[in-house]
Amino acid sequence: MIETETPNLLYDSMFMKACRCEPTDYTPIWLMRQAGRYMKEYRDIREKVPFLDLCKNAQLAAEVMITAVERIGVDAAIIFSDILLILQPMGMDLEYIKNEGPVLHNPIRSFDQIRNLREVDPAESLSFVFDVVRSTRAMLQPDIPLIGFAGAPFTVASYMIEGGSSKNYENTKTLMYSEPRAWHDLMSLISSATAKYLNGQVNAGAQALQLFDSWVGCLSPSDYREFVLPYTKSVIDAIVDGTPLIHFGTGTAMLLELMKEAGGQIIGLDFRVELKQAWDRLGQVAVQGNLDPCVLYADYSEIEKRAKHILDQTKGRNGHIFNLGHGILPTMSVDKVAALVDYVHNQSSKL
Amino acid sequence: MIETETPNLLYDSMFMKACRCEPTDYTPIWLMRQAGRYMKEYRDIREKVPFLDLCKNAQLAAEVMITAVERIGVDAAIIFSDILLILQPMGMDLEYIKNEGPVLHNPIRSFDQIRNLREVDPAESLSFVFDVVRSTRAMLQPDIPLIGFAGAPFTVASYMIEGGSSKNYENTKTLMYSEPRAWHDLMSLISSATAKYLNGQVNAGAQALQLFDSWVGCLSPSDYREFVLPYTKSVIDAIVDGTPLIHFGTGTAMLLELMKEAGGQIIGLDFRVELKQAWDRLGQVAVQGNLDPCVLYADYSEIEKRAKHILDQTKGRNGHIFNLGHGILPTMSVDKVAALVDYVHNQSSKL
Repeated sequence: MIETETPNLLYDSMFMKACRCEPTDYTPIWLMRQAGRYMKEYRDIREKVPFLDLCKNAQLAAEVMITAVERIGVDAAIIFSDILLILQPMGMDLEYIKNEGPVLHNPIRSFDQIRNLREVDPAESLSFVFDVVRSTRAMLQPDIPLIGFAGAPFTVASYMIEGGSSKNYENTKTLMYSEPRAWHDLMSLISSATAKYLNGQVNAGAQALQLFDSWVGCLSPSDYREFVLPYTKSVIDAIVDGTPLIHFGTGTAMLLELMKEAGGQIIGLDFRVELKQAWDRLGQVAVQGNLDPCVLYADYSEIEKRAKHILDQTKGRNGHIFNLGHGILPTMSVDKVAALVDYVHNQSSKL
Repeated sequence: MIETETPNLLYDSMFMKACRCEPTDYTPIWLMRQAGRYMKEYRDIREKVPFLDLCKNAQLAAEVMITAVERIGVDAAIIFSDILLILQPMGMDLEYIKNEGPVLHNPIRSFDQIRNLREVDPAESLSFVFDVVRSTRAMLQPDIPLIGFAGAPFTVASYMIEGGSSKNYENTKTLMYSEPRAWHDLMSLISSATAKYLNGQVNAGAQALQLFDSWVGCLSPSDYREFVLPYTKSVIDAIVDGTPLIHFGTGTAMLLELMKEAGGQIIGLDFRVELKQAWDRLGQVAVQGNLDPCVLYADYSEIEKRAKHILDQTKGRNGHIFNLGHGILPTMSVDKVAALVDYVHNQSSKL
């Protein structure tokens, strides 16, 4: 591993300590989509480079993330990548359409299509992501941990089946309810690829991982238990020992205990739950979250008031990583994002 | 009131008994969007009549609903209408665009715009909705209660501000967080109009009401308490005594207790919560819900299994109205919907 020269700086960073529920001098913070359209430097690059090309350009992907980390002063980096990259080697026809987001031109609707999907060997077909990990790790300050990530099996499956984002997830649920064997095969295929993919990122130099189950909140607890939990658990169980994993989803208010059961040293909370109430329910585990991103549209004093409300709920406990409840939006202000990071550092160091 | 000749048939209907948490011979059921695109008779009419025209044609609106009630055999009707009709007399430029849904061409983004909105006198500007209530009540079987409805203040405000449906509700939250006085004025204006509007529907012959806070699940509990609860409560407190009100929202897992505090004899549950768990948390109140609409894409045996799972959770309690967790989708099968209604009647009469 690349960081062998500086093991203590990373291991002893506030972010890694919080992942392990150890005391920290201040609350570590990073923000989902911290490298993205809200930042002029990013928009300038994206005018010249399409999204997929950027994900496949290790040097540029590293630069984009490091620029963001330095500009806003967060405590962790995450690789610049996308949860759907794993779909191309499976045989999915993925395209990022301007102003529309990802589209899969051959959505999965039948058992036959699932049988024709290819098993993914990330070392071969996703090695460009490992290059992004390596180059980001190499260029990043030696005390800033790097987070690798993947989509969780449900969220990845729902994109494959719907062909893009969805309002009601009707095709996904139809397959799930009507063809449970096909669902099983699809989820098994994704899970096995995802575990290898995440471990490959750890081997390439990532200190922590995040599993994004962004759309799982469309399910009832009993559906989650039956159709999702075993697969997510199989991914997390396969992660190499000693690498903390953040298990994140949105709309998961009723799924939190089940997500903890599936695994992850840190549970990611969205903004729909009160942090303290959710953490009390979860018990002994670290948590990440959970400021409503839209608070960043308010003025500075309101942002501080609401960030303080979250910090106040963590008093007396170790293991809180500050983050938004979902990603930064393109129209947000870089100055306000940076001010939030500063405020969290200052305010939490007083606690 | 029109139903004075047959007060007992309505008062003693299974639906009204369940609203009052009284024992019933079987579980009453109706379904959100039970008159809609999934039904050929409806599609045939809509080929000739635009949506807004249909809402304003009392005879046709009544026919559409009664056709649906008779075809699928539900225990309650709801007026054929829309939660956004209240916006036209306020001064909003509302259009229903084919395949896109409602659009407001003059979305509210400033205090000045709010000051220029008009107070609504429903007796004058929404009398066509009361005509729909009267004609539906007159044509409906005398033992089938009729539900009137309105959008809850938050959901109506979010449409006004976003100009249509939204993913992140960023404009709504920006106004809420940045201009709380403007938010207060807007919510007060909507609340006062909504209370009059709902009471007008009761006076025209509706036996029960539903308040749709469809999008309120994008808020945290503390935001709900501060920015929504007082206004929803003011609407519900103003409803004429003796008319049960169903207080419905989606994504409300963490808001249920606060919704109960705001009011409503029946709390509507979406499919993201386990019914029993939610009802236990709510305590003494009736509940409505909560089958995932997408279950209707599965085969008959799976639909029955999942309907039974819901009925089983209501054993030993009075006050359950069966419904979906959200509306019927256009591509669903009328036969399966009718079969669900039959199954709920038969299965629950055995309990």
